[in-house]
Amino acid sequence: MKFEYQNPTRLVFGAGSLNQLGEIAGELGKKALIVTGGGSVKKNGTFDKAVSSLKAAGVAMAECSGVEPNPRIATVRRGAEIARKEGCDIIIALGGGSAMDASKVMAAAVYYDGDPWDMIFHGQPDPYFPTKALPIITVPTLAATGSEMNCGAVITNEESSEKSFVQAPCLFPSVAIVDPELTVSVPKDQTAYGVCDIITHITEGYFNSADNAPVQDRFAEGAILTAMECGQKAIADGTDLDARTHVQYASIVALNGWIQSGISAGFPVHMIEHTVSAFHDVTHAAGLAVINPAWMRFAAKSNTAKFVQFGERIFGVKAKGADDLDAAMEGIDRFEEFLKSIGCPTRFSELGIDEKLIEKYAQETLRIIYDEDGNLPGLPPMSEADIIGVLRAAL
Amino acid sequence: MKFEYQNPTRLVFGAGSLNQLGEIAGELGKKALIVTGGGSVKKNGTFDKAVSSLKAAGVAMAECSGVEPNPRIATVRRGAEIARKEGCDIIIALGGGSAMDASKVMAAAVYYDGDPWDMIFHGQPDPYFPTKALPIITVPTLAATGSEMNCGAVITNEESSEKSFVQAPCLFPSVAIVDPELTVSVPKDQTAYGVCDIITHITEGYFNSADNAPVQDRFAEGAILTAMECGQKAIADGTDLDARTHVQYASIVALNGWIQSGISAGFPVHMIEHTVSAFHDVTHAAGLAVINPAWMRFAAKSNTAKFVQFGERIFGVKAKGADDLDAAMEGIDRFEEFLKSIGCPTRFSELGIDEKLIEKYAQETLRIIYDEDGNLPGLPPMSEADIIGVLRAAL
Repeated sequence: MKFEYQNPTRLVFGAGSLNQLGEIAGELGKKALIVTGGGSVKKNGTFDKAVSSLKAAGVAMAECSGVEPNPRIATVRRGAEIARKEGCDIIIALGGGSAMDASKVMAAAVYYDGDPWDMIFHGQPDPYFPTKALPIITVPTLAATGSEMNCGAVITNEESSEKSFVQAPCLFPSVAIVDPELTVSVPKDQTAYGVCDIITHITEGYFNSADNAPVQDRFAEGAILTAMECGQKAIADGTDLDARTHVQYASIVALNGWIQSGISAGFPVHMIEHTVSAFHDVTHAAGLAVINPAWMRFAAKSNTAKFVQFGERIFGVKAKGADDLDAAMEGIDRFEEFLKSIGCPTRFSELGIDEKLIEKYAQETLRIIYDEDGNLPGLPPMSEADIIGVLRAAL
Repeated sequence: MKFEYQNPTRLVFGAGSLNQLGEIAGELGKKALIVTGGGSVKKNGTFDKAVSSLKAAGVAMAECSGVEPNPRIATVRRGAEIARKEGCDIIIALGGGSAMDASKVMAAAVYYDGDPWDMIFHGQPDPYFPTKALPIITVPTLAATGSEMNCGAVITNEESSEKSFVQAPCLFPSVAIVDPELTVSVPKDQTAYGVCDIITHITEGYFNSADNAPVQDRFAEGAILTAMECGQKAIADGTDLDARTHVQYASIVALNGWIQSGISAGFPVHMIEHTVSAFHDVTHAAGLAVINPAWMRFAAKSNTAKFVQFGERIFGVKAKGADDLDAAMEGIDRFEEFLKSIGCPTRFSELGIDEKLIEKYAQETLRIIYDEDGNLPGLPPMSEADIIGVLRAAL
């Protein structure tokens, strides 16, 4: 176990913390670009509250609204252009993962003369690695992506049907203002997708690392159990602020490095999902809910002991030993049942996706990311045939 | 659950990472004050390796050796004086918690004209709160205090028999270089004390917060389980680098804020122990091992559900319900048995401490820290009689 970890983001957490936005923004800049998504923050009053807080603190504003659920590079270009033209010196993401991810790349694009798509790793030999960005404040309105407290962003190129990521230390938000009250109005289906997203962030690291990392395993299991327990409560009663609070906190720790440090994780389920959703524009977590159980059944054959541990510690499945594949599969079945129980799809047919482009998805995934043998990194690494097999099992 | 969290320390973790010391120090300064403890780092070659790495990177050095196990304010004064006189612009702590804690206060004392004891909270109405310090690199040679990645320090005033703490953002180490290989030579008893120290850091937060914090609970339980499992292995075979690695990592996460964020923790066991060890200069963790089970039995009477959860999740104790005090007490008995099994004392008599000064310890503890009702903060808050009762139960 050999690694480096540093996460400088200041986390301001708790119901009502949105009220601190103006004061905090005023410490970082004079004019903010507020980046928002599809309009729900305007309908439910969150936008007005944010604007009031900024005004009271004397922070000026410009706006970039309409960031799509799978945020597009054209939107990033547009936001960066507004920030430049308006002389913004700080970016505030007020929304879900898409607003946050787009904001991060906008913040770096302001300092980059080329096309921001150069930063998004899409198989090009020499991507541009950003080293400077405007200060970013994330204000998530959904518990899902964990983008609020990490340095990654996922962007879609709508012209080339590519969806991929950038990670760079300059993209760490300066401050994450995480106010669980903002998630109380999130509808049941989006809440469930958020829970699935949180859990999948954790399972990727948990199952794809060959390292022995017992603390990280326990942390992962603890965050999964909490996301499941409190997620069910938040779905049953959206106004349960206590449940919302713990789901929100699970979302942060799922992807801020506290669980991933020291484990050499691939993200195969995400990589495959990115390709599928670049072609079909499905909700990210819906794609994950379909692909993850199918991937698990594939991976459990070679990494049985870890799946046995998962089944035991998450679902109390009794195993005959670390090589008990039946017990491993039972744990995966139980996980799939959980996804169904909260209303997630678990087959492509539920998303209106058929087998037509299966080979294309596999090829595209491997064009964007591959190890020295040409396989998709993960445990085990996946050939094109492996990816097709997993996708086919999920039809 | 309302809180702020920020920890800017860069963590460089893994066997062999000591070799990076020179390079990393060179990024932060030109002349380092190396602070060490009783001499083991010189005997086992760690000091020479550190010096070689610094020399190779062209970093000059001065030295402050001989920091005591309970570091004294006189030593802090001496170290700050050397740093000033030698023009050091960086402090490197190479040792256990005492070297790290002393280094932090030295780093701030360099910028403070008054007496560094002013920074240590000891019941004075207006302590000096440090806001500036030299950059600090911690290189722990023991898995125990967690000081490597937090902003706290505990210092003893040998003249007044006071032992207390300071916490300030400027005391976060710039870099923590955590190399588990350095702990391979730690003897069995010190390894066991380290495990006890790690676990006690976690139980303080776990049992003393009234907040409902399920993620933090799971993280706490995960780190305790790992410290116990891998701690036993490291005690049985000191050369088990894998076990040493995970104990070392548990030590970091036990007190870097990942478990404490969002919970309003008192540290009653530490506060009582500080007073006792200020009078008797016992090993910190030996004092904790004696006081913690006695405190637990006191606290379990009012906070039964949390102790039931502890017994269930750590030791598999079956309870009839959340108010099953017998099950709670069984969990505490099992914990005390664990401490004994690794060779920790669990009664004051084993430390040569009798009842003579019991009232004095209680009074001194409450002179240094108290809530608005004059009680020691914790769950439940403790009166003088409560503290005396716990101490008497541990005789």
